[in-house]
Amino acid sequence: MEAFSDGVFAIAITLLVLDFAIHPPGSPLHQVLHIWPTFVAYIVSFLTIGAAWLGHTAMTDRLARADSILLRLNLLLLLVVTFLPFPTGLVGEALREPSSERVFVTIYGLTLLVIRLLGYALDEYAGREHLYAEKADDEELRDRKPFVPVVAAYAIAILIGLAFPVLAVWVYFGIAVYLVVPFREVARLLFHRP
Amino acid sequence: MEAFSDGVFAIAITLLVLDFAIHPPGSPLHQVLHIWPTFVAYIVSFLTIGAAWLGHTAMTDRLARADSILLRLNLLLLLVVTFLPFPTGLVGEALREPSSERVFVTIYGLTLLVIRLLGYALDEYAGREHLYAEKADDEELRDRKPFVPVVAAYAIAILIGLAFPVLAVWVYFGIAVYLVVPFREVARLLFHRP
Amino acid sequence: MEAFSDGVFAIAITLLVLDFAIHPPGSPLHQVLHIWPTFVAYIVSFLTIGAAWLGHTAMTDRLARADSILLRLNLLLLLVVTFLPFPTGLVGEALREPSSERVFVTIYGLTLLVIRLLGYALDEYAGREHLYAEKADDEELRDRKPFVPVVAAYAIAILIGLAFPVLAVWVYFGIAVYLVVPFREVARLLFHRP
Amino acid sequence: MEAFSDGVFAIAITLLVLDFAIHPPGSPLHQVLHIWPTFVAYIVSFLTIGAAWLGHTAMTDRLARADSILLRLNLLLLLVVTFLPFPTGLVGEALREPSSERVFVTIYGLTLLVIRLLGYALDEYAGREHLYAEKADDEELRDRKPFVPVVAAYAIAILIGLAFPVLAVWVYFGIAVYLVVPFREVARLLFHRP
Repeated sequence: MEAFSDGVFAIAITLLVLDFAIHPPGSPLHQVLHIWPTFVAYIVSFLTIGAAWLGHTAMTDRLARADSILLRLNLLLLLVVTFLPFPTGLVGEALREPSSERVFVTIYGLTLLVIRLLGYALDEYAGREHLYAEKADDEELRDRKPFVPVVAAYAIAILIGLAFPVLAVWVYFGIAVYLVVPFREVARLLFHRP
Repeated sequence: MEAFSDGVFAIAITLLVLDFAIHPPGSPLHQVLHIWPTFVAYIVSFLTIGAAWLGHTAMTDRLARADSILLRLNLLLLLVVTFLPFPTGLVGEALREPSSERVFVTIYGLTLLVIRLLGYALDEYAGREHLYAEKADDEELRDRKPFVPVVAAYAIAILIGLAFPVLAVWVYFGIAVYLVVPFREVARLLFHRP
Repeated sequence: MEAFSDGVFAIAITLLVLDFAIHPPGSPLHQVLHIWPTFVAYIVSFLTIGAAWLGHTAMTDRLARADSILLRLNLLLLLVVTFLPFPTGLVGEALREPSSERVFVTIYGLTLLVIRLLGYALDEYAGREHLYAEKADDEELRDRKPFVPVVAAYAIAILIGLAFPVLAVWVYFGIAVYLVVPFREVARLLFHRP
Repeated sequence: MEAFSDGVFAIAITLLVLDFAIHPPGSPLHQVLHIWPTFVAYIVSFLTIGAAWLGHTAMTDRLARADSILLRLNLLLLLVVTFLPFPTGLVGEALREPSSERVFVTIYGLTLLVIRLLGYALDEYAGREHLYAEKADDEELRDRKPFVPVVAAYAIAILIGLAFPVLAVWVYFGIAVYLVVPFREVARLLFHRP
């Protein structure tokens, strides 16, 4: 399960680059700057898949065994993760063509939310079915992000996106950074050094 | 053999997303809804490859050793799995252009059937050549899908597709869901809890 | 080294499918049959990478250790393997546009030859530098294809391709099948059963 | 961490081939020769990712453990590695359209430099946080490339690129070869044989 999932995460995260394409008319610098929304969407999606992978790795490391249902829930998570490059591309397109911004950014936000929800569902299921080995006090866990605030943040960002799509993309960026950065570890590194 | 196969399954399943593309004229919501056949074909192919991978994993877990012929049969299975994104894309195209529906849906159905047949062939060969370790009573096996009904269902769906291609795609969807869902485990989870 | 190489082989073999594309005018069946050269090139390249992977796996299984030079020779092999989808696509194009057949089929044949030569070079280097563990009498080795006939076959096919490109592609097909099929094992399976 | 990173390196290195495409008008040989900049950029990027992977492997082999921060630094390295196929494609385009050469070659050089810097940062962090196991005297390390000359070479090449983009690409080629070739090992192989 881990090798296959690692593979899917790795490929989905790498396929994101295929969304980049420049559109010839204009000076070369302008062509590159013109696709800034693709850069933003690329980084948001990369960090979101990265965060999902970090959570997934922390989970599989603790698993004592996997049952059939967990394997299928995992497949469902991978289904949405492999789908992400498509809405990521839509956002890259949309921020340049304001008419389709709202719809595409909303689809994007919903995809990000579902990835996160399925991550929590896997963890919840594994916990309930006693699939984890006992010891659970590692570093990765201490920096785990709580369910309610993250889901609430996504919900709010999706609502914001209905009125201000560009702002919503920046909120997704903020959430992705929050999900990836291990604040306690960073704080420990910065302040608690002897 | 397992790492390479896992890699091929993972990549083929992830490349499916490249079949998604919107076609600009029309409102943004209409553009996305317009490609619903691509969504359906995406999910059917994802689940079919997912089911093939689940069966493959259950098989390699039980293998005591692999011989040269098994490695080549495996390569043949991977040949068809890596080919699947192409007919998947055809179905996405076809359901929007009724003139080519019948041919493309038939090619798709045949590809799905061959993937399944090669999966059974691998299992059969490994059994006959005593490549499996003795113990074989695990959870994954109990939920194994029988050969005759599955192949018959594919054959019927292919015939249906000659007259009603869209219906056939939904039958493929049904078969894929049936292949992936571990009914006994789900039942155990729902009803046999103390 | 093995995980990374397995990954590269797996991806290169899967990317071959991206060379498939139909060209709308014409009946749907005609569109699919029209691209038969792409199917042939797909299968030849798939089997060639498959054979390279089988040889590579047999090699890494026997390795006691890897030194810096072997890692770099390996990287060179992967460079050519990852490049293969491009000439494969050219052949698919070329067999439909006779004017460019000769050049593209020659490039394709040279790429196939270089992949094979680098495979032999890796094996030769590992043998000379005593990187192999002692025991070397496994099944995969007994079915190893000899250097001189294979290289000669490629050289002849490349020469044939200068005059009859389509024929050369079928010779490459024959060589690829020869490289992948373990004749002794197949014979043992068919005739030496009690 | 290693499986996922190996996967990402393997995919990014393989996706580079998608930058190849021929442009029909002209004789077939001319079409292929016409895209020589794509070949050069392909090889430079392949070797740069290859060198990053070799350094990464040497690092993960020595790691006794990985902490949260190292995992995130690693994710940052992978972010830039997966991005590389895009500027590689730009360079392929640019060397044929002199007007955009300077900008695209500069973006390419900066990406190569950042990949290298993040590689050093990971190694530095792992060293400082005592994440390495003690023994560190292996072959790979003896051929490690020093920080200052490599970074200086990149900086100089980026400056050269502002005036002579084509020359800069050849300097990147030289740096990539330097990074990949294990000179001490090669010298040992050539001269110190008994």
